[in-house]
Amino acid sequence: MNIVEIIRNKRDCLELSTEQIEYFVKEYAYGNIPDYQIASLLMAIYLNGMSEREILDLTIAMAKSGEILDLSAIPGIKVDKHSTGGVGDKVTMIVMPLVASFGVPVVKMSGRGLGYTQGTADKLEAIPNFKINLELDELIRNVKKIGIALVTQSENIALADKKLYALRDVTGTVESIPLIASSVMSKKLASGADKILLEVTCGSGAFMENEIRARKLAETMVKIGNMAGKETIGVLTNMNQPLGRFCGNALETKEAIDTLKGKGESDVIEVCCVLGAYMLKMAGIGNNIVDNMKKIQSKIDSGEGLEKFRELVQRQWGDTRVIDETERLMTAKYKIPVLAEQSGYIEKIETKNIGQAIINLGGGRLKKEDVIDYAVGIEVEKKIGDKVNAGDVLLHIYANNEDVGKEQVEFLRNSYKISQEPVPKIKAILDIVENENA
Amino acid sequence: MNIVEIIRNKRDCLELSTEQIEYFVKEYAYGNIPDYQIASLLMAIYLNGMSEREILDLTIAMAKSGEILDLSAIPGIKVDKHSTGGVGDKVTMIVMPLVASFGVPVVKMSGRGLGYTQGTADKLEAIPNFKINLELDELIRNVKKIGIALVTQSENIALADKKLYALRDVTGTVESIPLIASSVMSKKLASGADKILLEVTCGSGAFMENEIRARKLAETMVKIGNMAGKETIGVLTNMNQPLGRFCGNALETKEAIDTLKGKGESDVIEVCCVLGAYMLKMAGIGNNIVDNMKKIQSKIDSGEGLEKFRELVQRQWGDTRVIDETERLMTAKYKIPVLAEQSGYIEKIETKNIGQAIINLGGGRLKKEDVIDYAVGIEVEKKIGDKVNAGDVLLHIYANNEDVGKEQVEFLRNSYKISQEPVPKIKAILDIVENENA
Repeated sequence: MNIVEIIRNKRDCLELSTEQIEYFVKEYAYGNIPDYQIASLLMAIYLNGMSEREILDLTIAMAKSGEILDLSAIPGIKVDKHSTGGVGDKVTMIVMPLVASFGVPVVKMSGRGLGYTQGTADKLEAIPNFKINLELDELIRNVKKIGIALVTQSENIALADKKLYALRDVTGTVESIPLIASSVMSKKLASGADKILLEVTCGSGAFMENEIRARKLAETMVKIGNMAGKETIGVLTNMNQPLGRFCGNALETKEAIDTLKGKGESDVIEVCCVLGAYMLKMAGIGNNIVDNMKKIQSKIDSGEGLEKFRELVQRQWGDTRVIDETERLMTAKYKIPVLAEQSGYIEKIETKNIGQAIINLGGGRLKKEDVIDYAVGIEVEKKIGDKVNAGDVLLHIYANNEDVGKEQVEFLRNSYKISQEPVPKIKAILDIVENENA
Repeated sequence: MNIVEIIRNKRDCLELSTEQIEYFVKEYAYGNIPDYQIASLLMAIYLNGMSEREILDLTIAMAKSGEILDLSAIPGIKVDKHSTGGVGDKVTMIVMPLVASFGVPVVKMSGRGLGYTQGTADKLEAIPNFKINLELDELIRNVKKIGIALVTQSENIALADKKLYALRDVTGTVESIPLIASSVMSKKLASGADKILLEVTCGSGAFMENEIRARKLAETMVKIGNMAGKETIGVLTNMNQPLGRFCGNALETKEAIDTLKGKGESDVIEVCCVLGAYMLKMAGIGNNIVDNMKKIQSKIDSGEGLEKFRELVQRQWGDTRVIDETERLMTAKYKIPVLAEQSGYIEKIETKNIGQAIINLGGGRLKKEDVIDYAVGIEVEKKIGDKVNAGDVLLHIYANNEDVGKEQVEFLRNSYKISQEPVPKIKAILDIVENENA
């Protein structure tokens, strides 16, 4: 097996064999192939693509390169959920307790935020004392006891993916569907769940701005998951504006709690109901999605979702007082409004800029080691289709440094495009992607 | 300036700016950009190509990354010659003394052999005591005195190209026209000549097997040279069979001397006359190519070319007795014939295999550090279009290790394809490539 030959094959649009893919993933993870050869191969994959068979092989090889969690000690069908990330996407914190309240075992491993999106792990850590790093046995114990655990992803999962992801970041090979799909799915295959629900975000606040590419990514991941023997469904969600009202760690946790209290924004509720409905279906609770959505809503209305969240926080050592008194979550010192300079209708929001502003405020990471300020963030007052008058508040900036806060005002104002003509509101759910052979 | 942005631009088929190209070449040469980022960029260049303007910028940036030789102390128009390499291509040793015998100053820097082609530097070193490494002042002194110097390329020429070439070799990005053209031309621009004649080889014994790609490479290099202000002409030569009769270092030196004595093979003489004729034209000796070819031939007939070669060998400390007594050149212990097993006409020769057999015999290098045996090689008896009878000698193997020599027999026999139908002979010169605006 020769790495230069593998590079040349991909360069010349030949399909790589299973053995070739296993070879380069394994030897790269072991440090036997230098970064520069894999960098060249990644660019060839980026530009020439991969067949579904190749992507499946790459996914499995990466999953096998690290620890594969064994959750078989937990009875029942374990459905995992993954989001490709979006600005203001606090869905995991809401939908997972709701699903768990049906007795469906929930084990969710979440990443930390990197770049313009925040991660669920950071949002939960905005709750004082919340312990997000659990050992596998503790995690299994918790799920057996209360039916839910929300934890960070093990450091030992899909080791080759970690190296490849870091290399892609510095070699201009991030935005490749085969590479994204295999990266996500390798971690999902290794994390021990039986079935997988994917929230594939799409729009100006998501990794995939283009709906055609987001759909292609969703289809690819759904296909790979099912080919690997795990039922997988994808939900395409609209990230052309932030989801819900708040963006930023503690602010999103507060919004998640409020949503579980029945005081949620309609787009957040819709996304949670749809995702929850498909998770219930996969868990065998019912095949009718409309009925399942109603079931999810009923657990908001009854407060059972909130109680499951409370159990979760308590079990993972968090301060449960934040649930009834959300003002106990860190709040920023300064609240600075961003005003519209003209009247009209919101036509477009450069949603990534909101994520960028949160990084600028200290609430996000550019590198893994960065320390974040949980309190800062953005409150969105106007969304696409809303009518505004000059002088209306578009959004509020929550800052701990007043100067830095003020520096974001122009940047954020310019992230809104206002039209003179009425603009329709946008829908939160774009489509459901199921396996074509399902 | 950001290297990841440069990679992304090329990945997305955007033209790189002059500043971007200068930046990555310079910073890579200085060690400020890691190999993995350049590897990714090289693959993007390989797959997405470069405009002529980008190739020119890349060529100039690489030339500027090292020493630029100043040959202005040598009066007259200095015409450099470069070959893209071929099996049995001993043309430099013949044509340069012939051109020098007209009083045209000849400074030729040659590489060593690597892979299946031998280099002129090694062939000259097959002459006992020949000193191929001259300092610049010694080189200039020699050219002023006798009009010719054949030397190895300075280690300090086009430093970025050295690093890039080594990286291309291990990242599957060798066979790219923009990268080959800029690599060759950067060294030519830095080597101080006024005009450049390129011998672009093409066929089964050349780097470019495909004539369309060889022509494209020639056109690109000719364009780049002229854009850079140095008149450049390309001659496309046929390497579907070895040039001349002998392949291997000392054997080719012997054949070069014999050719200067008027005992050359017709293909070698033709290529030398055509290359020499264009060099004379560029040097201002005459514009009519047919007349110039006759002038070159006349210097073979008069023995002036041979005398110039003798002066060269003497001036560079070589043993001039080899010229009159070529048997003083190292000869191998064993001469093993390879016989045809069937009758017919030679249709095809896998010429690279002859180069490979020479490596196997110890006469070539796989790595730069390999020590070579000058004596070993191949004598070609049958070429394309020749009629053979079963039992005729196709070629002779010159080996110093009899077992290794015998191991090459089947390999070489299988490198000949014999047809039952008559096959036309092939021409040595395929085309002349001049600047379209010339």
